[in-house]
Amino acid sequence: MSEIEGRAFSLLTQDGGARRGRLHLAHGDVETPCFMPVGTSASVKGLTPAELVEARTQIVLANTYHLWLRPGLETLEAAGGLHRFMAWERPILTDSGGFQVFSLECRRRLDDGGVTFASHLDGTEHRFTAENVVEFQQRIGSDVAMVLDVCVKLPAPREQLEEAVRLTSAWARRSAAAPSRAETVLFAIVQGGLDPELRERSARELVELDFPGYAIGGLSVGETREEMHECARATAALLPDAKPRYLMGVGTVRDLVAAIDCGIDLFDSVYPTRCGRNGRAMTHAGELNVFNARYVHDPSPLDPLCDCSTCTTYSRGYLAHCFRAKEMLGPRLLSYHNVYFVNGLMCEARAAIERGKWTAFRLAPGSATAI
Amino acid sequence: MSEIEGRAFSLLTQDGGARRGRLHLAHGDVETPCFMPVGTSASVKGLTPAELVEARTQIVLANTYHLWLRPGLETLEAAGGLHRFMAWERPILTDSGGFQVFSLECRRRLDDGGVTFASHLDGTEHRFTAENVVEFQQRIGSDVAMVLDVCVKLPAPREQLEEAVRLTSAWARRSAAAPSRAETVLFAIVQGGLDPELRERSARELVELDFPGYAIGGLSVGETREEMHECARATAALLPDAKPRYLMGVGTVRDLVAAIDCGIDLFDSVYPTRCGRNGRAMTHAGELNVFNARYVHDPSPLDPLCDCSTCTTYSRGYLAHCFRAKEMLGPRLLSYHNVYFVNGLMCEARAAIERGKWTAFRLAPGSATAI
Repeated sequence: MSEIEGRAFSLLTQDGGARRGRLHLAHGDVETPCFMPVGTSASVKGLTPAELVEARTQIVLANTYHLWLRPGLETLEAAGGLHRFMAWERPILTDSGGFQVFSLECRRRLDDGGVTFASHLDGTEHRFTAENVVEFQQRIGSDVAMVLDVCVKLPAPREQLEEAVRLTSAWARRSAAAPSRAETVLFAIVQGGLDPELRERSARELVELDFPGYAIGGLSVGETREEMHECARATAALLPDAKPRYLMGVGTVRDLVAAIDCGIDLFDSVYPTRCGRNGRAMTHAGELNVFNARYVHDPSPLDPLCDCSTCTTYSRGYLAHCFRAKEMLGPRLLSYHNVYFVNGLMCEARAAIERGKWTAFRLAPGSATAI
Repeated sequence: MSEIEGRAFSLLTQDGGARRGRLHLAHGDVETPCFMPVGTSASVKGLTPAELVEARTQIVLANTYHLWLRPGLETLEAAGGLHRFMAWERPILTDSGGFQVFSLECRRRLDDGGVTFASHLDGTEHRFTAENVVEFQQRIGSDVAMVLDVCVKLPAPREQLEEAVRLTSAWARRSAAAPSRAETVLFAIVQGGLDPELRERSARELVELDFPGYAIGGLSVGETREEMHECARATAALLPDAKPRYLMGVGTVRDLVAAIDCGIDLFDSVYPTRCGRNGRAMTHAGELNVFNARYVHDPSPLDPLCDCSTCTTYSRGYLAHCFRAKEMLGPRLLSYHNVYFVNGLMCEARAAIERGKWTAFRLAPGSATAI
């Protein structure tokens, strides 16, 4: 197929369902498929911006919900925006806060205008509306802002999913009409749970609004892996080829590869960093828990096929020791490796798509994708 | 004065009481005065070896007590020694374990042969003797090993201090007679509390044994700062000029400068890294607690006179946020700065002594030493 060039996205080539694209954002281009490490509170846990770049990170995600509560808009604006605050010069995508308001254990009251909730930090009351959430993201300087959505935990009754779709579309309409800023592109979020008709309705209503990009939300929230893959594939097919597609909350090797195969371009997940903090390493031979007794005397690197600084400097035995001795260096070194590993998987996926070798890559035994 | 050249130490020059020297160790030379960051369990908390080098660290300290219990001799030997295990290629000094056995809240039984104690980790019984502690340090590849000593918490009755001196000397005699390894030099530890006569006795008995270096132990254990400085000065005067002198457990700017003035060459303390983990920064304008409300919106660097990567990359506001949000990046960035700062103080002190400007440096208002 020929190249499709959009405002914020170019679809460079396809191989089967997999897409090779490029996002054009205010802080630079992002080659897709691309994984975004999560920096919830303006920090990818344990890692510096320099290390994120070294680990081949192109874009990070931060959370409107957390940043709104702490440090807050005033601090972020005084610092010259989120990029300068956290010393990250590459693109940032900010989540809208919808997911956190509906998933964190905080009191909330939903109405057509927005959602009123109590901070999980101090119980103070706050209100998100379609408009103020987009304005917040624009003012802190996000490259990609997400519209406020209603995210439902699965399984859920159909009426609840239908109401979530209705409100998400209504809010998206208001977000699209709100004042915009050239440096921030706005992505809408398709909801609808596992119901094909609701997904179709949600996608249709949002596509009509012609957003620069679309996310598939409401997955990785309680359904099985097979249900998630099937729904992601069906939903991706409802979205325009020329717009970037972002599957929210996906970060395991198996899910990433399956989602790329569904035609998804962007991903985020705390998985690599959370696993890293807990002693789980993502490797070419599968996941490895450094607490396992077999690694105490193991002089080999975490992943012999990895060339990151953790793998070229330290042994499994040393990492096992750091975790047992509760040395903070352990979580830091494993988080670095996991981010490096997932970013590397994306590099390999992009190269495979470019060369028309996607199917081989996806199925190749012994490669990362076999995990 | 002319240069004094010893086996493990060269005294290059003196300026007043302050000494400028060079330790010759198996993993390289160490310019003195020198501060050693503490890597208790084979890790300087939160920092990589590469960062320690970048922060101008010449030598780190590790603890026999902790390493003996975890990961243990077998793991360290299997890894090819402590240097390879922790990926640190510069010199390492290991403490003997005496201080930990007598200061940690563990059961212990002291006899002329050694000390039997229960691990603080799992209650298992272990025994340190003059011989096995030195052997352990040699086998893990320490550049500088410390003899087993009896460290007494102050204030203490004279009989207890006297008994500590007696045993410390007896153990030092046995350590000196134990098998030696060319790559590991052995330092003895002067005890005696704040009692001048006991300090004199301890120093005399140890100097007779002609160790390659001497530490002043039993300070920073409950006495006042003035008592500590007075005792360090008096004890240093009892030690031979040609041997390096190491004051154990000292790490604040004021104490370091006072101790250099007493003629001390080497120091170690958890102070810079512990402060860093707790949000306290050591700066040219004194100590700064990032939890202080005034720093929340502060766009200036931690220490405007510092050129470390923490100070040139992040604002006080961002660091304050990281600590409030419990982001592990905060402790890491502050620990790095504090180690960089203390190592920088040592660089400046060495330069001042070389140029005959020690007194000016020590008293200079506005310099780090004014803190």
